[in-house]
Formats: sequence, C-alpha cells, structure tokens
Amino acid sequence: MSDQQSVAVFGLGAMGYGMASSLLRAGIETHGFDIVSEQMEKFQSEGGKPGPLEDAANAISIAVVCVLNAAQTEDVMFGAKGIVPMMKNGSVVIACATVPPEFAKDMEKRCIEQGVHYLDAPISGGAAKAASGELSIMASGTKEAFATAKPALDACAQNVFELGDAAGAGSAMKAVNQLLAGVHIATMAEALTFGMTQGVTPDKFIEVISQCAGSSWMLENRAPHVAKGDYTPLSQINIWPKDLGIVLDVAKTAGFSAPITAAALQQYMVAVGMGLGREDDAAIAKVYARNAGLDLPGEK
Amino acid sequence: MSDQQSVAVFGLGAMGYGMASSLLRAGIETHGFDIVSEQMEKFQSEGGKPGPLEDAANAISIAVVCVLNAAQTEDVMFGAKGIVPMMKNGSVVIACATVPPEFAKDMEKRCIEQGVHYLDAPISGGAAKAASGELSIMASGTKEAFATAKPALDACAQNVFELGDAAGAGSAMKAVNQLLAGVHIATMAEALTFGMTQGVTPDKFIEVISQCAGSSWMLENRAPHVAKGDYTPLSQINIWPKDLGIVLDVAKTAGFSAPITAAALQQYMVAVGMGLGREDDAAIAKVYARNAGLDLPGEK
Repeated sequence: MSDQQSVAVFGLGAMGYGMASSLLRAGIETHGFDIVSEQMEKFQSEGGKPGPLEDAANAISIAVVCVLNAAQTEDVMFGAKGIVPMMKNGSVVIACATVPPEFAKDMEKRCIEQGVHYLDAPISGGAAKAASGELSIMASGTKEAFATAKPALDACAQNVFELGDAAGAGSAMKAVNQLLAGVHIATMAEALTFGMTQGVTPDKFIEVISQCAGSSWMLENRAPHVAKGDYTPLSQINIWPKDLGIVLDVAKTAGFSAPITAAALQQYMVAVGMGLGREDDAAIAKVYARNAGLDLPGEK
Repeated sequence: MSDQQSVAVFGLGAMGYGMASSLLRAGIETHGFDIVSEQMEKFQSEGGKPGPLEDAANAISIAVVCVLNAAQTEDVMFGAKGIVPMMKNGSVVIACATVPPEFAKDMEKRCIEQGVHYLDAPISGGAAKAASGELSIMASGTKEAFATAKPALDACAQNVFELGDAAGAGSAMKAVNQLLAGVHIATMAEALTFGMTQGVTPDKFIEVISQCAGSSWMLENRAPHVAKGDYTPLSQINIWPKDLGIVLDVAKTAGFSAPITAAALQQYMVAVGMGLGREDDAAIAKVYARNAGLDLPGEK
C-alpha cells in the first residue's frame, strides 16, 4: 500500500467535507477523518477510503487539516495521535483553519524538522464553494510545499493566492479578510435595524443599498437571511469571537489600535451571551433588535 | 419671461455643478447659483442662464438645492433671499443634501404652506456620476412632487428609488447608506494598515481582498487612493463627522445604539484634529498609520 499516494482530510465539517468531496470528484484517493464517526461513515459511503489512520498514514502525501482553530490544528498535527511524525519525507500539510500568523510559522518550523512541508493555507468562500471546489485559498509556503500540495489545491480552489515563500503570510491575509468580513456583517445588522427605526423595511434596505455605495459582499450575502428570518447556520456567530479575537491579539502584539474591530467584537460577544452562538452570523441583527425593541422578520 | 419654464440649481460644488451640467446637456434652460461667483460665471460660460435670482425666480419650475447641509438648505429655501416664497404655485424643490429625516419633513410642510412641492431627494454616486447624469437618488414625496420633478430627475439620475409619498423616507435611506459607507471606508483603512503590520502591502491587499468576502464598494473605490498615496479630495474627510453625526443624532432620538458607527466617527474626528478635514476621505488611513508608526505609500 505504501506506493500509493493519497490525500487525507482531517475535519469533516462544513468546509472540510466539501473539500474532501471535491478531492474525490477529482479522482484522488481520499481518506476522511473526524471525531464524529457518522461523518466518517457518510464520507466512506460516498467513496472515501477507510481508516484507521495508522494504516493509511504512510501512504498520505497530502494532509488537509480543516479543523476549527489553532489548538485543534496542533492536536491533529502533533498531539497524541499526531499525523506529522507518521507522514513520509516530502509529504505536505495544508493547514486551512484561521490561526495567528505566528502559530503558522511555528507549525511550519516543526514540520520541517520532521521532513514534512507545510502550506499556510486559510480558505475563504463558505460551505457552498467548498463543496463545488471553488474556494479562495490565501496561501504561503516554500516552493516545494506549493508543488506537493498542487493536486489538492487544483481540486478544491478557484483562486489560489500565492502570498510568499514562508508560512505566516497566508494567515496574515486571512486575518485581514476576517477583520473586514466580521465588521461588515455587524455593520449590515447595525444599518438594517437602524433603518427599521426610520421605517425602512429590510426588503427595501436590500433593494436600494445593494445598488448604492453602502454595499458590501457580506451585506449582499447576509442581509437576505435577516429579511427572510432564516438563521440556519451557514456560518456561526461563534466564528467571530474566535476570528476577531485573533485579529485583536495579533494587533495588540503589533502595537496596532483597531477600534472598529473591537466594537464589532463586543456585539458578537453580546450575541453569544444571548445564546445565539450556534445560529447563523446574520443573527447579530437580533442584538440590535433587542436593544431597540424591534421585531425582526419572522419574530412576530 | 414668466411663461418660460426653467430649472435653477443652488450650490455649484462637485455634485451640484455636475447636476447643472447634466440638465443643460438635456436641453433644459438652467440657472446656476452659488456663493462663489467664479462658479456661476464658469457655468454661464458653458451655457447656463444668468441671474439675478429675483428676475429668474418666477420662471423657475424646479429648484435643485444641492448644498452642504440642513442649515444651508434652509437658508436657500427660507432665508433672507429664500427662494420658496418667490416660486410660483405648483413648482417643486428637489432637496439633495444629506439631512435628518425630521428636517426634511419640516421643509416639506413649509413648502406646502407656500403652494410649492417638495421632493426629499438625497443623492449618491459621487462627482463623476453627477457629471455624467448617472446619480442614484433616494427620493420620497407626493405624487405631484415626483411628477413636477421628473424632467430634472431624468436628466440627472440613473436610478430613482421611489421610497414613499412623504418627505423623510428619502433622507432615512440616505442616512442608512451613509452609516454603511462611512464605516466601510474607515474599516478599509483599519484592515489595510493592520495588514501592513503583518507584511501585507496595500497593493496585495487590494488584489486579494477585492476578490474575497471582505470586500465592499467603498474598499474597491477608496483603497486604491491609499495604495497610490493620492488624497486629492474626491469626497472630503469633513463629510463624515457631519453625516455620521446625523446618523447618531437620529439614532439617539430613536433610542438606537450604534456602537460601530460611533467608533468610526471617532476615527474621523481624529483625522479632523490632525488637519486632514479637506483631504480625500481615504486619508483616514493616516490616523491608523500615525498611531502604529507606519509609513503609507507616498509618505517616504
């Protein structure tokens, strides 16, 4: 079995499952691992290769790590059943979680010590684009890391931004994107509910603002969730205390003041406190509505 | 002369001059008035009709008021040389400044008392679209106000959003748009300079983020000003303390908390304090750069 090359995806959540499916669709032998055994069984029923990890590890040339955060990434790579020590020389880890740039640099260093390449490769685009193999990947790493990762990048991404020859740059760009995305979602909610106090309905808000200078990618994507009263979690509120927390930690280390990010983070913290953490992030509108005594669509 | 119908534009700044030129281009007899006599002479040299206002007033069927704020709007309409008392029955005022919705309602009431229609008609799109007759107009007013204003709206606008049959709704939507636009410009600056602390250049920021979920209309429009170090004032910093101030005043009256808007406003206030009020609003990036000890493009 050790002559065969294969990919393993660690983390079969909304993003990882989509990436694993895109790899299968590209004809690549793909293992899928998750702490939720039902997700692994589902993936195997759709053509995914079975474990256990120990048997598969020496055939894995590409490990895609698509878990929630830095702690889970480190555990998958170097924990009790860490994969990196099991991987063969010259294989590559593609690390997709949003993590601090310094963490990515540390992971790269530890991988190189084990003869394994590391691609700092945060992803953007949401679950639908993960499933269709059309993600944007903000990637940095050595030339060898990019070359080894190429079959998986080709299968999963529409855009691969090559941001430098060392880990850290990919995660830095992702932090920049998350600063903007997190603030824009909260600002959409602030503006939409402010409009409601002045008689502007959510539908009219979307109709007019999406054609004016106040629009944003996130406004066009998330405001319809509020207008429909549909908070099915495509991307959870819980993402934002984590990601904006990373932004502010990195900013603090750099001596950088980010007051708008800090204000947005507080609104997400209120949402978590209200028990909305697992709802779609457009539910940040409920914080504003509660404070102002407004009824959002679907609430009455 | 009293049988002739004509339009008068009050305020020949970046927006008003463009609208007046669009009216001329549409073959409409147009007077232009401004406190800066050079602007009036320039407009007359391009085909604008001469004053004085007293002679022209009884022929004016449409008065476009395109001044800086509510105080100037009220002065043009009802001040010592106020136009409304001079205008004939059934004529219309098109009021384009960003003003509080309650102010617009008051102006409508006072116009109706004089037998003059009032269209609450804030504009969006910037000087270039004003000049090309492609503005977006967020309008509300009576059916008669819309009907009388139609020739001017047709000449100046690409989109006329009809937001209701009474003044106030147009200004409410404009306030919503300005909340978003003002926050998005400042957030662009926060993210761009945060990225610089992590080695993300302004050019790379624009290349990547404009294709990712963190993008906004304002980011795509203003970030290039920072990347080029060009702060030629297409829209001044000074606009934002005024417009976000209106948003927060309206919000306060409505019992609405807008913490992200408040945080953005403070950054514009810092910019004004630094003497940047008359620079392009992308110069908000200089606040962040100064605080973090960064050199923006063009600064070294």
